Amino acid sequence: MTTAAHAAHAAAPAAAAAAVHEVTCSAPVNIAVIKYWGKRDTALVLPTNSSLSVTLSQDHLRSTTTVRCVAADEAGDRLWLNGKEESIAASKRLRNVLADARRLRRAAEAADPALPALAELPLRICSVNNFPTAAGLASSASGFACLTYALHTLYSLPLSVSEASRLARVGSGSACRSLFGGFVAWEMGQRDDGADSMAVQVASETHWPDMEALILVVSDARKDTGSTEGMQQTVETSTLLRERIASVVPRRMRQMTAAIHARDFDSFAELTMADSNQFHAVCLDTYPPIFYMNDISRAIIRLVTAYNRLFIKPVAAADAAGDSAPAATSRGYRAAYTYDAGPNAVLYLPREHVTEVLGLVNHFFPPPAAADHAEYFGRAASAFLPAVDPAKVAALAAQIGFAPFPAGSLQRIISTHVGDGPRVLARGHVESVSLLSATGLPASLA
Amino acid sequence: MTTAAHAAHAAAPAAAAAAVHEVTCSAPVNIAVIKYWGKRDTALVLPTNSSLSVTLSQDHLRSTTTVRCVAADEAGDRLWLNGKEESIAASKRLRNVLADARRLRRAAEAADPALPALAELPLRICSVNNFPTAAGLASSASGFACLTYALHTLYSLPLSVSEASRLARVGSGSACRSLFGGFVAWEMGQRDDGADSMAVQVASETHWPDMEALILVVSDARKDTGSTEGMQQTVETSTLLRERIASVVPRRMRQMTAAIHARDFDSFAELTMADSNQFHAVCLDTYPPIFYMNDISRAIIRLVTAYNRLFIKPVAAADAAGDSAPAATSRGYRAAYTYDAGPNAVLYLPREHVTEVLGLVNHFFPPPAAADHAEYFGRAASAFLPAVDPAKVAALAAQIGFAPFPAGSLQRIISTHVGDGPRVLARGHVESVSLLSATGLPASLA
Repeated sequence: MTTAAHAAHAAAPAAAAAAVHEVTCSAPVNIAVIKYWGKRDTALVLPTNSSLSVTLSQDHLRSTTTVRCVAADEAGDRLWLNGKEESIAASKRLRNVLADARRLRRAAEAADPALPALAELPLRICSVNNFPTAAGLASSASGFACLTYALHTLYSLPLSVSEASRLARVGSGSACRSLFGGFVAWEMGQRDDGADSMAVQVASETHWPDMEALILVVSDARKDTGSTEGMQQTVETSTLLRERIASVVPRRMRQMTAAIHARDFDSFAELTMADSNQFHAVCLDTYPPIFYMNDISRAIIRLVTAYNRLFIKPVAAADAAGDSAPAATSRGYRAAYTYDAGPNAVLYLPREHVTEVLGLVNHFFPPPAAADHAEYFGRAASAFLPAVDPAKVAALAAQIGFAPFPAGSLQRIISTHVGDGPRVLARGHVESVSLLSATGLPASLA
Repeated sequence: MTTAAHAAHAAAPAAAAAAVHEVTCSAPVNIAVIKYWGKRDTALVLPTNSSLSVTLSQDHLRSTTTVRCVAADEAGDRLWLNGKEESIAASKRLRNVLADARRLRRAAEAADPALPALAELPLRICSVNNFPTAAGLASSASGFACLTYALHTLYSLPLSVSEASRLARVGSGSACRSLFGGFVAWEMGQRDDGADSMAVQVASETHWPDMEALILVVSDARKDTGSTEGMQQTVETSTLLRERIASVVPRRMRQMTAAIHARDFDSFAELTMADSNQFHAVCLDTYPPIFYMNDISRAIIRLVTAYNRLFIKPVAAADAAGDSAPAATSRGYRAAYTYDAGPNAVLYLPREHVTEVLGLVNHFFPPPAAADHAEYFGRAASAFLPAVDPAKVAALAAQIGFAPFPAGSLQRIISTHVGDGPRVLARGHVESVSLLSATGLPASLA
């Protein structure tokens, strides 16, 4: 094929697809370092406090979604999730997102009659996650971010990405933060209608390029309270949450933003760990108490704490100093843990320490005996060096007070880094990209 | 032996012993339902908040202590604990207690020259606990309470029991609460010198006679942060503790006192469980976080929560209603859990539910295969009925989401009830009672 022919070949489907109103996008996962827990308005998904997260690379964890407008005489909206059709009627949140997007498109069409009439056309939505369900990672954030970004693109909504993040928020609160790459704040806002409750980017994915993440997937079949239900139990019964909302989080949001802007890993680590601890503390202060961490989760905390202690002088947490600026000199933190509403640990750490931390994790939490190396370690499989400094292992073992866990205490390790925001993979129907076949059914089922 | 001879026989040793300045006492363990965690003055052991506990029966758990004044030319003070001599010089707290008691005796002698000069005489102290070290029960509370009560009696100190409790407090904060039976508050006080920081009885051991306690001793060899060190880490780093101190505990002290006076088990149970949760929450909000409960501790919480749910309508915690009076109607709570600085559960429950709760605990946490029945169940061995209602077991299993644990997840079960305060077992040297031989060495070593 000549270059000209190749170009014509590439252009032809795009031109042909122009008539097909379809968009395919991908969107990332995010893991909060200042945690969201509690709604002041459950219908609009307005939080009791602001939160801040790190967006993880779509190269390793992503949702992909195709949305298409079909002819008016087709049956109503349909949705497939990971190859299985889901009831849209059963999900009030999903219906709210679609209704919000259509309302905005309808207004745009009313203002500009030259726009194609898409708002009332039925939608076909097909979405997949590339990470295993067994990983215990919440897919609602990347999923609703992806749907929102795809609708935003399909309908050419006259909104900034921050404004569009409000649609994702209505679908799943923390989804709004996946509308941006890098470091992202969800500003809680003050308004009753939620118009000012949206995501803003604190720093892009290129700002702190050596920030890596390791997700330690903890084997645990048990489910505890779901986060939607759990956070409202905390709002209703915790007598400590109000202090967190009124005083602690506003201060930590300022401190964390400053730490990120200054690439101050010490302050970033202290705040991240303190806020993970406090999130689980208010879960425990809930009645009945909510537990998300298990003995393995806690052993990982002990390991990270002891590992950091090899390098830092003990100092009080950043909070103890109130609103003071981040310390001017490095205190030597190597890694920070954080836990969402489940037992899995997410470690944030500078790239230079990844190999050593992986080696220590692997020493104290050995892989399952029959584990496939590449599958278990993922991206880390090539970087992983099994040799760890015996002196460090001995020093840590003395501090943490536990022997290595049995093989298989972790299910897998996902190695990733800070990543970018949602991507448009195709405008119009591109067969190699679209999740929907030409007939409007999932390509995987065609 | 005639009655007269018997009386003479009994009187003779007492008369002979009068010349020997010696006292033997026993004192109980207490388990807090509103927790003490944090000192505002570490030297004087002044707490950051008031606390409230239940005194457990000395029939099952007790410290016993003999104190004796010996001749001035004997070597200085000596102490034996569980048969082993301990260094008094090494324990600043112990020295403080002895110094306080001597200062008070010295003042009494100065005011009344007729009193024998005991204050400057060397002391022999011998103390034993009747509960196994492996039970993981803090012996410092009963131990310092017993020493205090014995010195108070030996020196005939002109103090009320509340005032005397200040001596125990200086030895070990929560020890002051073991100076009374029944339900006991440690009023934090306001004064810098600690004169108003002491124990007061909220209700006697006869006030709520059907209150029982089950101590589920959880197998766990690991030690975490000691409580003396841990609580000051919380004071220094937790950003939630101030809310607990300033607002939550003062309210709960009032509510708990009212619940006890009204024998309102529902409110007692809700407050007990909520305050245990919150104590562990502020431990988790500490930096680095402190964990005392493990997966078995949490499974017991799930079991108790699910068991109560079989009988109550879900209601918000007592705290949610602010300062309202206890509910007038029973909400049906059957048992309340509380955890001190360790993984062991203490359950408070009305006597009528003990057998069923024991059966359920035994179902989900079976004894070690080789356990000696009497040793494992203690007092409960005779009351224990292995048959449990299969419908209840099924209902609980569905809720708690875990199968019965492996045999031996619990080390033993201590069954006891609310008990009385310290007892004087002998004034003067009574050979059958004293822990010291006539020569001033431990009787067990003589």
